Amino acid sequence: MPSRDQVHYFGAGPAPLPTPVLEEASKVLLNYNDSGVGITEISHRSPDANAILAHTQSCLRKLLDIPESDGPDGYQIMFLQGGGSGEFSAVVYHMVSLWLARLTTRKQQGLDNEVQKMKLDYLVTGSWSLKASQEAARLVGSEHVNVVTDSRKHNDGKFGVIPSQDSWTPTNHADDVALTYYCDNETVDGVEFPSAPDGPNLVADMSSNFLSRPVDVRKHVAIFGGAQKNVGTTGITIAIVSNSILPPHAGMADSKLLRKLGLPVGPIVLDWPTIAKNNSLYNTLPIFDVWIAGQVMQRLLDQSPEDQSPRIATQAAESNKKADMLYSILDSSDVYSVVPDKSVRSRMNICLRIKGGDAEAEKAFLKGAESRGLLGLKGHRSVGGIRISNYNAVPVAAAEKLAQYLKDFAKEQEG
Amino acid sequence: MPSRDQVHYFGAGPAPLPTPVLEEASKVLLNYNDSGVGITEISHRSPDANAILAHTQSCLRKLLDIPESDGPDGYQIMFLQGGGSGEFSAVVYHMVSLWLARLTTRKQQGLDNEVQKMKLDYLVTGSWSLKASQEAARLVGSEHVNVVTDSRKHNDGKFGVIPSQDSWTPTNHADDVALTYYCDNETVDGVEFPSAPDGPNLVADMSSNFLSRPVDVRKHVAIFGGAQKNVGTTGITIAIVSNSILPPHAGMADSKLLRKLGLPVGPIVLDWPTIAKNNSLYNTLPIFDVWIAGQVMQRLLDQSPEDQSPRIATQAAESNKKADMLYSILDSSDVYSVVPDKSVRSRMNICLRIKGGDAEAEKAFLKGAESRGLLGLKGHRSVGGIRISNYNAVPVAAAEKLAQYLKDFAKEQEG
Ligand SMILES: Cc1ncc(COP(=O)(O)O)c(C=O)c1O
Ligand SMILES: Cc1ncc(COP(=O)(O)O)c(C=O)c1O
Repeated sequence: MPSRDQVHYFGAGPAPLPTPVLEEASKVLLNYNDSGVGITEISHRSPDANAILAHTQSCLRKLLDIPESDGPDGYQIMFLQGGGSGEFSAVVYHMVSLWLARLTTRKQQGLDNEVQKMKLDYLVTGSWSLKASQEAARLVGSEHVNVVTDSRKHNDGKFGVIPSQDSWTPTNHADDVALTYYCDNETVDGVEFPSAPDGPNLVADMSSNFLSRPVDVRKHVAIFGGAQKNVGTTGITIAIVSNSILPPHAGMADSKLLRKLGLPVGPIVLDWPTIAKNNSLYNTLPIFDVWIAGQVMQRLLDQSPEDQSPRIATQAAESNKKADMLYSILDSSDVYSVVPDKSVRSRMNICLRIKGGDAEAEKAFLKGAESRGLLGLKGHRSVGGIRISNYNAVPVAAAEKLAQYLKDFAKEQEG
Repeated sequence: MPSRDQVHYFGAGPAPLPTPVLEEASKVLLNYNDSGVGITEISHRSPDANAILAHTQSCLRKLLDIPESDGPDGYQIMFLQGGGSGEFSAVVYHMVSLWLARLTTRKQQGLDNEVQKMKLDYLVTGSWSLKASQEAARLVGSEHVNVVTDSRKHNDGKFGVIPSQDSWTPTNHADDVALTYYCDNETVDGVEFPSAPDGPNLVADMSSNFLSRPVDVRKHVAIFGGAQKNVGTTGITIAIVSNSILPPHAGMADSKLLRKLGLPVGPIVLDWPTIAKNNSLYNTLPIFDVWIAGQVMQRLLDQSPEDQSPRIATQAAESNKKADMLYSILDSSDVYSVVPDKSVRSRMNICLRIKGGDAEAEKAFLKGAESRGLLGLKGHRSVGGIRISNYNAVPVAAAEKLAQYLKDFAKEQEG
């Protein structure tokens, strides 16, 4: 029956949250802002809720240096329900509708034929981008999904690399490309893009490395991520969407035309223009989850110098330090093998095997870890072995304790 | 700066929660089940999370007497994200796909023509069923939406009645009807169905009167509701779906055929067959919200005799008692006028005007209420006046305090 400080949790998501945030949360659940009403009870349209929403948006802007403007160079920050997986679909509905609207400004006739050319370009570098590409195929038909690269074809059928760009097969004509999609950090496979790839209408899933490093926001038309890893609790997804792909700066195809051409019409709750227009309050928003995210972000701001840009740099340095420490121990012993290629190792999800995947040794490792209060280390069933999730709320001290255990376990096995 | 017990909150949603549930929640946020890990941090695939999910489902089954069986007469209990509004769309995607699959068992040719006949029958009795019917029209085209009744046509352009069934215009052929849709309790307009209407493939939105009275589950193919009123927190929607409309008992149309016929394909996170097959764990489920709902339901069970059926009867009696008390005061003074017709008054959302809608008097009422700690009483902007939400977590004592104020205010105005 351990207490909170006797345990270090390295789960892949949901992830740990800073204890002070949870302590404050436990108070506001009963009484928010001395109103006598709890935070899950207040109206999402109340002044208190509006202030929470504005605070969280403003923190995120500062942390990632997200351009603020009503013009086409500005970005909206939205909160949606449906998780990261919901956005796999939202992205497709939106970018397809946008693509069609743009097409109709160039052509008015023979749309049936023109639509055949539409392509959604997916970089498949792990389980999550694979899932996203499969959802796209379900929604628009596999004939419209162009797999620009599939890591497995370059790595014996397994994820774990990002093939070099000369081997990629993007769609030739930029006009045909509804979106270029990638997953910045593959949570299951421990693969992270060193930097954002190129491609027209670039969209990124940052569910598992949000707020862990600076992001070249301007390179993307949209970035999204479930909150339940570095940012907060399960219940909200964050989408950062360029005004250039939203009304009034961009037209959207109407649902009748989409249907007529066999293209999908998405649910209103995932419709970015609707959510943007209503500042995330189209329907009831889980304000508690938005508040948690805001508290987590405020802490990141508080620890970073005000003249830093972007303000996430301080956290990035800490994330890198923790990851470097763990990887260097793994690299220094033959007992461990890191699963992905060195060039694309994730700083957030460290996937390793013990003695080349020795079931007994891996079981022993997990058992020993548990007895030291180091929890949540089992790898995803599709990869096996061990996965250390090094999210923001994993304190340096916890990473150090795990580092010590990694050393001790290696010595024991070697000895 | 009032404390929680100095305030009585009558908001329309999110709604109050029982204080003991929030007190317990504030503990498990930091440490769930003595694991050293908080409830928002644990994996949705952990044994603890599975137990929470099973507990909440089991409570709900008992409370509403929901048939449990793997056969076509059984019902699944699912938790989804996206709110009540998300289910407006989910319902359409599912029932249209089901309708098409059924059609293809009868006809193989000329599907293009056959599809023209498909109808979605909507009973429009207030703002929320209106919104749901508008979403259906957006997704499938207004030519497929048959408004069986629109209360406004029978009440000077305003909601507030449910027209008698002889005036309804349901689609003639049951085979053509993809669904019959109604909203059991119209939160904005204060209108509640005295009992479930008739119609093929009956679907009900019970977002705002869930768990307030017995429900004839077997009459419906699906019942859904956002949790944030009587059940819990914003973040999950509950769907009770008949096995008879789910695989393997029912076929679903494949997405290619749907697209070809100009019918919509929904996002995977709103796909009932996928969610049912994965027992609500297709993607990360907000387990905290499921836990809250389970705690709320457990309290309802604890207060009802074990041999009662359905177990919700005890709460229903209390809800009725509170509502009767409030309406009888409103009826006994000329100062107040209840907005909807007496025959369809909601037990959950009591909409009233003061002195026929005298702005000064209504303002004075709200001000006086606030000074007594009676909050959340402002009517929805589309109806105006006062709205008293009489949800389950509004204690009898709070209703009594409000009743006293209603009497005092009336006397003051009359005198
Ligand atoms: C990178 C990534 N994308 C998407 C998802 C899906 O998120 P959700 O479970 O909220 O749908 C996950 C979940 O772990 C993820 O790690
Ligand atoms: C009856 C009814 N249906 C649907 C909704 C929409 O729910 P949500 O805001 O969760 O989308 C509401 C919200 O108040 C409601 O009262």
